[in-house]
Amino acid sequence: MSRTDITRLREKGSTDRAALDALLDSCILGHFGIAGDDGPVVIPTAIVRDGDRVLAHGSTGSRWMRRLGSGVPACLTVTALDGVVVARSAFESSLHYRSAVLFGSCAPVADTETALDLISERLIPGRTGEIRRPAKAELAATLVLELPISEWSLKISAGWPEDPDDDVAGDAWAGVVPMTTGYAPPRPAPDLRAGIAVPDSVLRLGSG
Amino acid sequence: MSRTDITRLREKGSTDRAALDALLDSCILGHFGIAGDDGPVVIPTAIVRDGDRVLAHGSTGSRWMRRLGSGVPACLTVTALDGVVVARSAFESSLHYRSAVLFGSCAPVADTETALDLISERLIPGRTGEIRRPAKAELAATLVLELPISEWSLKISAGWPEDPDDDVAGDAWAGVVPMTTGYAPPRPAPDLRAGIAVPDSVLRLGSG
Repeated sequence: MSRTDITRLREKGSTDRAALDALLDSCILGHFGIAGDDGPVVIPTAIVRDGDRVLAHGSTGSRWMRRLGSGVPACLTVTALDGVVVARSAFESSLHYRSAVLFGSCAPVADTETALDLISERLIPGRTGEIRRPAKAELAATLVLELPISEWSLKISAGWPEDPDDDVAGDAWAGVVPMTTGYAPPRPAPDLRAGIAVPDSVLRLGSG
Repeated sequence: MSRTDITRLREKGSTDRAALDALLDSCILGHFGIAGDDGPVVIPTAIVRDGDRVLAHGSTGSRWMRRLGSGVPACLTVTALDGVVVARSAFESSLHYRSAVLFGSCAPVADTETALDLISERLIPGRTGEIRRPAKAELAATLVLELPISEWSLKISAGWPEDPDDDVAGDAWAGVVPMTTGYAPPRPAPDLRAGIAVPDSVLRLGSG
């Protein structure tokens, strides 16, 4: 991202659908808000974008997933932290982030199996080709919900510190410390049988 | 964390206040849920634990911060993703996470300056000693809220895959791929004056 881009994007609301998709596709965690009996409740869940919808899944036994799937008004917020903005004062210091807020209602997905394949492939690309197909009982125990990407807002903070001239003339350092995320080497399960190599899907996670 | 610990913690609700504090102290991002006019709204914000309260701050001009500070019922969810659980089936595959859900009401903090120092020191330890004090106008433009740590729940998923015997006997690999977060090297601001070295606080961020 060039400096021009960074400046242009600083704490601006964006209507750029491609930027929204890029955020949703780079995050696997979202937070759903729904009304509870005594006030709002915020529920973390894995999310996967599929075209113009966001998929989330959980157990059919989950009270919150069932309530979410009943079509009550919902809000899904997806946030990526990208860096620390170190300004010459505490006031101008901040964070680089991208945050999307989506509004709407969730509905259960009829084709659980196809949706679960999408979710599996998003979390561990290539994994579905390495393992058995889901059993009927497993599919029956899984609730997949979809939220249409329809009403949303996107905020991106990606600029340099914007210190006043007096501070720029001073002796304090200023800049950005980017944040990174990644994967550590895979740890085999204690009950893994001897001679089973780390599969391609897991190797790719670490190098992705 | 030993395997015994891991197994014990698998997707268990926890009442361990120390584990709650450890989560809150390892995350700088939280998601507040409050009721909006047309349904719940989930707002991302930096959070800092200070003893038995969680601090969040924003502009006094922020409509959502003001509403949050008015004492309406609020929910704060703080989630850390720690790894991908690669099981021998899609059904048993999941994520390692720690997630806290706090309920209560936020109130404005009277001593904004002290609270902002706490927040600055949490985000960039040592930084307050390197920069000027906040100006009165800056303090007046900043709203700091506190949420008491009172009613909360904590969920921790930290176990190995729990595949059925039939799958363990098969040829699929299983294990955990830990997720990592960190900082990339600092990038100086384009308007940084020559001869100003990267300060200790920023150097420590990268090595922390």
